[in-house]
Amino acid sequence: MVDYIIQKVVEDIYILRLNDSSTKYFEALWEIPEGVTYNSFVVFTDDRVIVMDGWKKGYEQTYIEALKEVVEPGNINYIIVNHSEPDHSGTIPTLAKVAKQSLILGHRMAIEILRSFYGLEAKYRPVNDGELVKISEGDTIVTHHVPWLHWPDTIVSYFLEKKTLFSCDVFGSYGIPSRVFYEELGDDEKRLFNHYAKKYFVNIIGKYVDWVTKNLLKLSPLLNNIEIVAPGHGPIYKNVETPLSLYRYLGSKAIERRKTVIVYASMYGFTENIINTLIEEIEKKGIHPLVFRITDKNQPVYSELITELFDAENIVIGTPNYDSDIYPSIKYVVELMKAKIPPDNKRIVLLSSYGWGAVAARKLNDVLSEKGFRVVDIVEFKGRPTENTVDFLKRVVEKIT
Amino acid sequence: MVDYIIQKVVEDIYILRLNDSSTKYFEALWEIPEGVTYNSFVVFTDDRVIVMDGWKKGYEQTYIEALKEVVEPGNINYIIVNHSEPDHSGTIPTLAKVAKQSLILGHRMAIEILRSFYGLEAKYRPVNDGELVKISEGDTIVTHHVPWLHWPDTIVSYFLEKKTLFSCDVFGSYGIPSRVFYEELGDDEKRLFNHYAKKYFVNIIGKYVDWVTKNLLKLSPLLNNIEIVAPGHGPIYKNVETPLSLYRYLGSKAIERRKTVIVYASMYGFTENIINTLIEEIEKKGIHPLVFRITDKNQPVYSELITELFDAENIVIGTPNYDSDIYPSIKYVVELMKAKIPPDNKRIVLLSSYGWGAVAARKLNDVLSEKGFRVVDIVEFKGRPTENTVDFLKRVVEKIT
Repeated sequence: MVDYIIQKVVEDIYILRLNDSSTKYFEALWEIPEGVTYNSFVVFTDDRVIVMDGWKKGYEQTYIEALKEVVEPGNINYIIVNHSEPDHSGTIPTLAKVAKQSLILGHRMAIEILRSFYGLEAKYRPVNDGELVKISEGDTIVTHHVPWLHWPDTIVSYFLEKKTLFSCDVFGSYGIPSRVFYEELGDDEKRLFNHYAKKYFVNIIGKYVDWVTKNLLKLSPLLNNIEIVAPGHGPIYKNVETPLSLYRYLGSKAIERRKTVIVYASMYGFTENIINTLIEEIEKKGIHPLVFRITDKNQPVYSELITELFDAENIVIGTPNYDSDIYPSIKYVVELMKAKIPPDNKRIVLLSSYGWGAVAARKLNDVLSEKGFRVVDIVEFKGRPTENTVDFLKRVVEKIT
Repeated sequence: MVDYIIQKVVEDIYILRLNDSSTKYFEALWEIPEGVTYNSFVVFTDDRVIVMDGWKKGYEQTYIEALKEVVEPGNINYIIVNHSEPDHSGTIPTLAKVAKQSLILGHRMAIEILRSFYGLEAKYRPVNDGELVKISEGDTIVTHHVPWLHWPDTIVSYFLEKKTLFSCDVFGSYGIPSRVFYEELGDDEKRLFNHYAKKYFVNIIGKYVDWVTKNLLKLSPLLNNIEIVAPGHGPIYKNVETPLSLYRYLGSKAIERRKTVIVYASMYGFTENIINTLIEEIEKKGIHPLVFRITDKNQPVYSELITELFDAENIVIGTPNYDSDIYPSIKYVVELMKAKIPPDNKRIVLLSSYGWGAVAARKLNDVLSEKGFRVVDIVEFKGRPTENTVDFLKRVVEKIT
């Protein structure tokens, strides 16, 4: 059964929210046991009806049913496509078919993508950066191009008179909140959604972090004049400061001082043993490292690992030598790091065990350094760590804590 | 509860077999819902007792208990370490402590590794390639160095008079067989274990496939004179031809004519759609491709994927463009292919969908070609495949079937 809610957000704005708990891997990649929502909005003016974005491909019929509870599709005048990725645009072709008098507004690239993804020929009108779209007398939508958050087609739409920002993936979050508004969640759930918003950002937008500050700067004239932020995923916000401060923080590529993340693979426990010693030493300094384990019984949740790495100051990577190379899952982690994690201000420590040939640490060092990560120490040991290894490790801990 | 069996194999040879169903990822990497066994052997001569290999690290106490049901540890004269990896050598240090009069035999590298892994100081005697170890009057073990199957330390031990080959990882298999001997399994279970043996080979030894033929050649003088093959994992064999023919086949890097494996990632179904068209076209040719899917609901079993790729003639890889790069999980698959799969005689077809920038197929082509894989065709399409794409695909199918 498809689970969705329809709710009035404020006067004249309705949310159609699909609660998707069947997607296990967002983008077929990121583990999301918390689920995700797709938020579509219907906005009424005195004489016009506007739909903002849609739901994921595959939910077309349910979307139209839900929509009909709010508006007769034939009465829709505008469909705004802030971002053409199919988790938001999937229902647009079906909608366009029933919303016969509608005009589709979007960035010219979004329109191009709608054509190539769906073969959708419709009435289109490309919108420009900073364009004032006159909906009707006293109703204006300003479209802002926010390139690379996280596609080149991405815009946000600001409804001037209603002081509402429809931001699609920007300020989006994983998870299925129990209330439509973030502000109505309990404290525990708020904390969860703070995390889900960060996780969504790092997983999906992380690669384009350098575009966050540029785009926020562009939006700054309107940021003081927003009463509602309505993203395409997760909760919507009455207080713009909540999602904005997260984006300022992540966009700055700041690190959380002393935050330490450890990820290691251990086939037979040798690396695990020295990691346990390391954890003890780090905890003596009052730091509680976050540990992600790759063992014969356990695999890490990569979506969470990458999230925690984003603003860590210290990253410890433990890898066995495997087939005279870096251990495969660690190689995968490093590829994700290269794609999603800014190297700025981080310290990396490499731990590597070997049986008969030590190459993994050197290779890891090369790969990470090439990407701008600063490897501050390499701890290598054959088989069991010796007392010398442990002493060296203690000096490393002094350095990074 | 630890599950193990003790059984007489033939007169004077006993197996101590640990049935490990708690290891979910062999080498912390390969999915093995079928489990794995660690086979240790006790061999009696008129006046000597020999132990061949042991169990995985972590099962030391249970191992000693099991052993005591067969022999008083103090009476053990020789411990032969065919391979020092901790899934076989893990119990050796504890054994050496209680088997006070024992001498440890192994390749000099195995001895070096026992020292570095466990700090084990014991009575050691390094054995050479082709060495005849005189156990007692009329009892001879011939040790053969089989380097890179799959470590440089690896030997197999041939008990001359008992015509038994103790081969540790060589001829090993995943799975927990219901009988000790392969020949005693039912036909269905035999088929399963044929697959598990191949899977084990590809996962663990695949990288060193070029050493198989060399090492088999070295062993050829004794191969006609073997009555029992006793590996360190899985079933033991009365008919040497069973594991040997598998190794001859895999070692030859032969392909199975027309065997087609498809692995693809699809975030929103566009790649999936064209893959489905491809599957239809291939099936029209009487070929049933093996398909591994990476979607929002499903992740592939990588240990099986790599196994099937090993002797495929045709490999189709479908990747979306992701963050202007190869899709991360496909990159991981390709890294595994580079490590484990011989490129010989294979045809690769790349399928790639994109929204706004096509780079993944070109990058994949570069990575695979550099490793010697032959990319015979690249099918790229923006969003939906067009009729042209489908026509092109049909021509590709003609070429590869």
